[in-house]
This record gives sequence, C-alpha cells and structure tokens, in this order.
Amino acid sequence: MYTVLDDALTATVAITRDSLPVALPLGFARDGDSVLLHGSTGSDFFRRLAAGTPLYITVTHLDGLVYARSLFDSSMRYRAAVIHGVATVVPDADKQPALLTLAEHLMPGRAAEVRPMRTRELAATLVLRVPLTNASVKDNSSSVIEEHDDGEDRTVWAGVLPLRVVAGDPEPSRDSERGPTAPSVYAARDRIHGYSSGPDGTENSERPD
Amino acid sequence: MYTVLDDALTATVAITRDSLPVALPLGFARDGDSVLLHGSTGSDFFRRLAAGTPLYITVTHLDGLVYARSLFDSSMRYRAAVIHGVATVVPDADKQPALLTLAEHLMPGRAAEVRPMRTRELAATLVLRVPLTNASVKDNSSSVIEEHDDGEDRTVWAGVLPLRVVAGDPEPSRDSERGPTAPSVYAARDRIHGYSSGPDGTENSERPD
Repeated sequence: MYTVLDDALTATVAITRDSLPVALPLGFARDGDSVLLHGSTGSDFFRRLAAGTPLYITVTHLDGLVYARSLFDSSMRYRAAVIHGVATVVPDADKQPALLTLAEHLMPGRAAEVRPMRTRELAATLVLRVPLTNASVKDNSSSVIEEHDDGEDRTVWAGVLPLRVVAGDPEPSRDSERGPTAPSVYAARDRIHGYSSGPDGTENSERPD
Repeated sequence: MYTVLDDALTATVAITRDSLPVALPLGFARDGDSVLLHGSTGSDFFRRLAAGTPLYITVTHLDGLVYARSLFDSSMRYRAAVIHGVATVVPDADKQPALLTLAEHLMPGRAAEVRPMRTRELAATLVLRVPLTNASVKDNSSSVIEEHDDGEDRTVWAGVLPLRVVAGDPEPSRDSERGPTAPSVYAARDRIHGYSSGPDGTENSERPD
C-alpha cells in the first residue's frame, strides 16, 4: 500500500455532490498512515471535502499491457490503491509542516531552494488529511494468465508490454536559461525514473545531461 | 478533447453507491462522440453502470512538474477530460464491433493475430457507451506562471520537468520466448512512445530491439 501511494504523484478524488458523482485529479502525498491533499480555500470541491463529505480516492499505476492469445484473456498490468472515508482539516498550527510534506513528495528538495511560504499563502490554502483506515490495494503485476485452452493459437506471441513514466530534460523558463538547473529538479527526475518501473523495482538514476 | 481521450488507455469511473462515492480505474476507448467501457456481467460495478446510475469519468495525463520560485506558484502540467452522464448498454448485435474498437485502441492490430471472440465470451461481457454530450477538457500545458513578484529569489531556477509514459522491452511469456514478438506489440509500443509527450507532440517511434 505504501509503495503504491508513494510511487504516485496524483490521485483521483471522487465525492457525491447533489446526489451525483464528481471526481477530480489532485496531487497528494502519504504522511504516515494518512494521505494529505491541498487546495484553494476558494474551491467548492475542497470546501465540500473540508465539510466532511465522504470521499473515495483512487491511485492507479498502469504498468503494462498483457497480451494473451485471446482478446478475452488480455488485460492490463496495474497497481491500484483505493481509500474511502472522510477528510479532516489540518489545523493552522500544523498546516506549514503538512504542506512541506506534500512539497517534499511532489518536488523533493525544492522547499530549501525557494523563499518560505507567506502567511497569506497559508491562509489561502486548505490542507486535508484522510486516514488509511479504509484502504485497500490491488497488485496485478502478474504475467499472462490463460485459464484454460479454449482454442488459442499457441504459436501466437504472448507476453507483456511494460509501461512506465519517465522524466525528460528540464525545460527552463525564459529567465532561467543561463543558470544551472536546480538540484531539486534532478532529485525529482532521479526519483521519477523509477516510477512504475514494474515489479523488479529497477531504478534508473543516470543524469544524461 | 479527442486528443486527451485518444492519448489515454485508462480512465477513472466514479458512481454513487448507497449515497457514497466509489471509483474504479478502467480501460476505455473513444468511438466517435462517445466512449466505450467493457467489463464482466458478474461485476456489481458494471451492473450498476448498465442500470443507468449516473457516472463521472476522469481522464488525466500528468505531463510535467512546474517549478516556480515559490511553492505556492508551483503546480503541475496536465491535461484532463471529464465526462458525466449515463451509460447505455451496447446491444448484442453491436457488441462485437464495439469490443473490436476497444481492442484496437488498447492493443492496435492485436485482434487480427488471435482467434475470434467466442459466443460465451461475448455473453460474459457488458459493453457500455457514454456520450460526450456533457464533457469538458482542461489543458494546463503552460510553463511557469508567477502572477506577480512577491519576494521570489529571481536567481533560483524555474521551469518544467516534463513527464511521459514510455513502453519498455516486450516480456515474452515462457512459451513465447523462442518466437518473434507479435507485430501488434510494436504497434502499441510505437504509439505509446508518443503518449504524454507534451505540447510539442513529438513522437518517438524507433524500435530499439
């Protein structure tokens, strides 16, 4: 469960609004046995979460396409975590450390490179905590499964096409073109290279630049 | 909208069940001005969708991390599509072509390599269609946005770390190790190389093997 959450940067968060489902993709981070979300105090969606509307969080890694010898037996290699429950608002005193936990997950090392958060920025941000009390994980990282022979052509290739997320070359903003790239960007890149790398967990931490 | 949907293999589908939100990741394909979903007739989730419970589909591409000079202005480069509405059951006569449309999106060319679908497989599969009538797309593929100078250190690097999904080397099943890899696997790989490649739309279609 921890690995599936920690390997991800975004989750889809669903709620019921006026009896209908609504879902949004959000950045998140695990903090011990809970996950943290953050958003604008001006967001209707976040205000509903803060008010305690039940939510359902889905985190998915698509790790490959599974080519069986029939379309019916073909599938996907994936890992998914789901969490349901109710969020609580992180109180003002704990907001800054919680936001630093989020930042450290999404952009490791970046907080030390930029100016501190402003009081007005903290005031404009809602930070929510959702416990992992009601959570489950599904790891379908198996290879091809063909339950029984029902007419498949055994000479056809079967196997898995693995997929993963990789980071490319940093793109500097116009006024950053002359300076060196921030170390935190390489830290994120090194970390992301390993994302969704499949069950062997191999990491690629080279810096081609 | 079409591009955001066509670049994706999975979507998160949310419904309301017993007043609470529930969401699952599912493979999908766009078919004209609708999307197709498929699942087992034995799935409670799919039976609810087939019965017309309102659903909310979220498709997200995380295309990069946006490093501004404050944590507050930092964000993500992403494209997202959302669709809400009600699914209709694809009638038996149209089920096979709809499943072939799904297969062609998820595993291009594979249908021609494997045996035809069996009647019993078709009977065990629910195929659903959701119109794009109520759909919207959000494309946040911009670079760094810093609304105004509020104390940022201008000497700090700012920019974007682009992310994308890539396909690795095909992993043959034990009894496929000696034969040539199926052409359809390379077709999928070529296509996935371009996934989430960012706004420049560059494709990488080399075959390193």
